[in-house]
Amino acid sequence: MGCLVPAAGLGLRLGAGRPKALVDLAGEPLLVHAVRALRACPLVGPVVVAAPVGDVPAVTDLLAPYDVVVVPGGASRQESVGLALSALPPGVDLVLVHDAARCLVPGSVVGAVIEALLAGADAVVPVVPLADTVKHVDGTRVLGTVDRSGLRAVQTPQGFRRDVLVRAHAAGIVGATDDASLVEALGGPVVTVPGHAEAFKVTGPFDVVLAESVLARRAAPGGRHAR
Amino acid sequence: MGCLVPAAGLGLRLGAGRPKALVDLAGEPLLVHAVRALRACPLVGPVVVAAPVGDVPAVTDLLAPYDVVVVPGGASRQESVGLALSALPPGVDLVLVHDAARCLVPGSVVGAVIEALLAGADAVVPVVPLADTVKHVDGTRVLGTVDRSGLRAVQTPQGFRRDVLVRAHAAGIVGATDDASLVEALGGPVVTVPGHAEAFKVTGPFDVVLAESVLARRAAPGGRHAR
Repeated sequence: MGCLVPAAGLGLRLGAGRPKALVDLAGEPLLVHAVRALRACPLVGPVVVAAPVGDVPAVTDLLAPYDVVVVPGGASRQESVGLALSALPPGVDLVLVHDAARCLVPGSVVGAVIEALLAGADAVVPVVPLADTVKHVDGTRVLGTVDRSGLRAVQTPQGFRRDVLVRAHAAGIVGATDDASLVEALGGPVVTVPGHAEAFKVTGPFDVVLAESVLARRAAPGGRHAR
Repeated sequence: MGCLVPAAGLGLRLGAGRPKALVDLAGEPLLVHAVRALRACPLVGPVVVAAPVGDVPAVTDLLAPYDVVVVPGGASRQESVGLALSALPPGVDLVLVHDAARCLVPGSVVGAVIEALLAGADAVVPVVPLADTVKHVDGTRVLGTVDRSGLRAVQTPQGFRRDVLVRAHAAGIVGATDDASLVEALGGPVVTVPGHAEAFKVTGPFDVVLAESVLARRAAPGGRHAR
């Protein structure tokens, strides 16, 4: 089971003046938390991280304890995943793709995705229901309320048969916000497994506060990692 | 400017064995935080809270410092809003409807909704973009990825001209998850204003952790209320 971690984003919304993946969370870079969450699963083998081009040496040092390969990322998330995929060793037939920003993903989510892959799925995404009422808008005008009963918010890691992911990335589709949508565009089947609130994406200062409170709770006496 | 607060829900997801509105957040019930957030805006006048039928005396005591009217709520959120609306004093022409569960709503959001109402809007909702990729699903099968560029997650307070809200609630529409959708169903115009991450809904244990970390940050030396 390989794992690709696109972490080349600039994180402008975090505004910390450095790549998003290197933003500090309770004393350690976000990316270290993310890789540690993946390494906690014994079924995860080779991990390839796509880092900002100028930060490859620093990220390599940072992640030295976690046995990962660091490659230069691309101009988009999709391109970074493709570059990491090219660097994945041969003989690895199943692949996870995990956003570094979902750095506190619980082991239960990683496990559910892997389990579905091992059961034969081509492509797997962890999902959660949408918490809020959703409106369709045109600028500031509301067009209507969306039936959200059939909608799900998608998290990572997403899981793929390697050949399916390679074909999807080779198809030249642009503008995808996740990897499963590339598979969908080729007509391939994608299944869902339950995600978890703690697999949220750290994108703004509010998320940093939230992430640090989750970490503090896990570290507290009697604190438990989400399962 | 009146304000209705439906707070009669049982909060089964919070699992605290008591009405959701009375769940403790940093030493005070969620509902107290919610009413205080509304009262912080000097333009907010009469406030009517719809409480669980058996809890009306306790909620009345609890909210005594905040000059609110407490009425028994109904079997659904929509019914509770209708009951609170009936108890709003005459002469109040503009109304906010605010979920008690969005107890940390920043003053900037309340202010933006009021401002749009004062500028002549019939109905106003605060919105934020959807953070995650969204899939359309059928059970555990993904049907496709939704274009979320025209979608927004809706928060509260929502604001209404009173006559518009009265008509909307009198129309006999069932199953609405917010009040603006009743107005939409009658063809009435609804506009959006910017919401805020801190106006999230406290519905599960994860949200309680988040809410308490926001409160702790606000209370810290140099801590700032979101504006």
